[in-house]
Amino acid sequence: MSTPFRVTRRVEFHDTDMAGIAHFSNFFRYMEFAEVEFLRSKGLSVAWLETSGERIGFPRVAAACDYRRPVRFDDLLEITVKIARIGRKSVSYEFDFSCGGEQVAHGRITAAYCAKNADGTLAAIDIPDEIRAALSR
Amino acid sequence: MSTPFRVTRRVEFHDTDMAGIAHFSNFFRYMEFAEVEFLRSKGLSVAWLETSGERIGFPRVAAACDYRRPVRFDDLLEITVKIARIGRKSVSYEFDFSCGGEQVAHGRITAAYCAKNADGTLAAIDIPDEIRAALSR
Amino acid sequence: MSTPFRVTRRVEFHDTDMAGIAHFSNFFRYMEFAEVEFLRSKGLSVAWLETSGERIGFPRVAAACDYRRPVRFDDLLEITVKIARIGRKSVSYEFDFSCGGEQVAHGRITAAYCAKNADGTLAAIDIPDEIRAALSR
Amino acid sequence: MSTPFRVTRRVEFHDTDMAGIAHFSNFFRYMEFAEVEFLRSKGLSVAWLETSGERIGFPRVAAACDYRRPVRFDDLLEITVKIARIGRKSVSYEFDFSCGGEQVAHGRITAAYCAKNADGTLAAIDIPDEIRAALSR
Repeated sequence: MSTPFRVTRRVEFHDTDMAGIAHFSNFFRYMEFAEVEFLRSKGLSVAWLETSGERIGFPRVAAACDYRRPVRFDDLLEITVKIARIGRKSVSYEFDFSCGGEQVAHGRITAAYCAKNADGTLAAIDIPDEIRAALSR
Repeated sequence: MSTPFRVTRRVEFHDTDMAGIAHFSNFFRYMEFAEVEFLRSKGLSVAWLETSGERIGFPRVAAACDYRRPVRFDDLLEITVKIARIGRKSVSYEFDFSCGGEQVAHGRITAAYCAKNADGTLAAIDIPDEIRAALSR
Repeated sequence: MSTPFRVTRRVEFHDTDMAGIAHFSNFFRYMEFAEVEFLRSKGLSVAWLETSGERIGFPRVAAACDYRRPVRFDDLLEITVKIARIGRKSVSYEFDFSCGGEQVAHGRITAAYCAKNADGTLAAIDIPDEIRAALSR
Repeated sequence: MSTPFRVTRRVEFHDTDMAGIAHFSNFFRYMEFAEVEFLRSKGLSVAWLETSGERIGFPRVAAACDYRRPVRFDDLLEITVKIARIGRKSVSYEFDFSCGGEQVAHGRITAAYCAKNADGTLAAIDIPDEIRAALSR
């Protein structure tokens, strides 16, 4: 496997809760941020494209996080993104969070490659070869 | 003026910050919640409608809040909504927040009545008479 | 097992994203809301208590969600809470989300029973018998 | 007056709403981010300090924002921070948001300098000379 992709993210004041730590739900937003930057580095996007009348995107079908240590306001997180698996219609990422050299959390997201139909419903479709190639690059 | 519209809202754990109080930004989400319930009580919606191919909505053009006392996890807020002014293309609301009988905050939101063009841009348009009538009811 | 605990929650405008659906991270906030209401129904709280100088709480050590169908602004979610397991120092919950009679998501949260030390660090401790009894009631 | 302080901030996917634009409430989180970075550049912090047993901070007593143009996922905002006024117990900031060279929003926050009492209540106190000096620097 290639070198993992890394981004940093600072814990913001509004990310904290009354226990004085980053609220657990924010790790899913941090993962999305890392996923977006990872896709950007491959020339891809998480968002709906509207090319040729089709609206395509990567909605998440599963997300999970294990928390090892709490993090606090102003902590600088280093997030590592790895593709765990590219399936026919979905991609699974793993995210490793560390702070000051110690692992603080580990997360996973599976996103399906979907087309948005005219009636607003979503349907998972096969990941096109060029996107599969870009992801694996 | 008619009796003001009231809703209640409980401060949730994820609404709090490390200072132990509801984060100030959440009052704007509480106002939106109250605005949505107010509009619902009038048979209206804050969201984009897609009737006759047109997408219409009420994006906010101004928002403000004065904070008198901090509120904490599990506090039950009573929110009063009043229309301050209905202009040609916009509506201004006032929101009064109290908790345990004491005023805790006071907010204002101005929303423009907008159509969404095919290219995604928004344009403020005159509020139709039937919506003006529903708001004043 | 006893009848599951149920709460309802409406998808709010600020919960949606540009794909027109509730952002996946919000399901973790909906789970927290359901957990808080579940604990409240047992006479317990998710938040730090400051009894006898000790600060005790239930920080989450793991959270996961599988998404079956997207939900949209104003959808009314029915959330069912079940205790999956009460360990020596932690509790695992399962959350079932449905909307209009169809399952839309399924989530899990594991929370550790922790004391907050004077230096701000958290340490998992044995769940006291009376809390264990209240949870199982 | 000195040169204004500038930071950049990218609109994230979870910042958007179903209208396809950054939700208005997020501008208050962007302002907080800019305020924190501004204070950091002065050697100060928005957060509670626990020096000498005292807990001091800058909770907001007023916040407002005027929105000129919607911004979208991945837009890069340039935020300018200026001190509008340093009072005896409070500081007022102005925030100018631009994107691609065009102004998109203008905000204001007033924060009181507060001590947190042992019972958890907050009391505004005089801004100490050294903090006043650091802010004006």
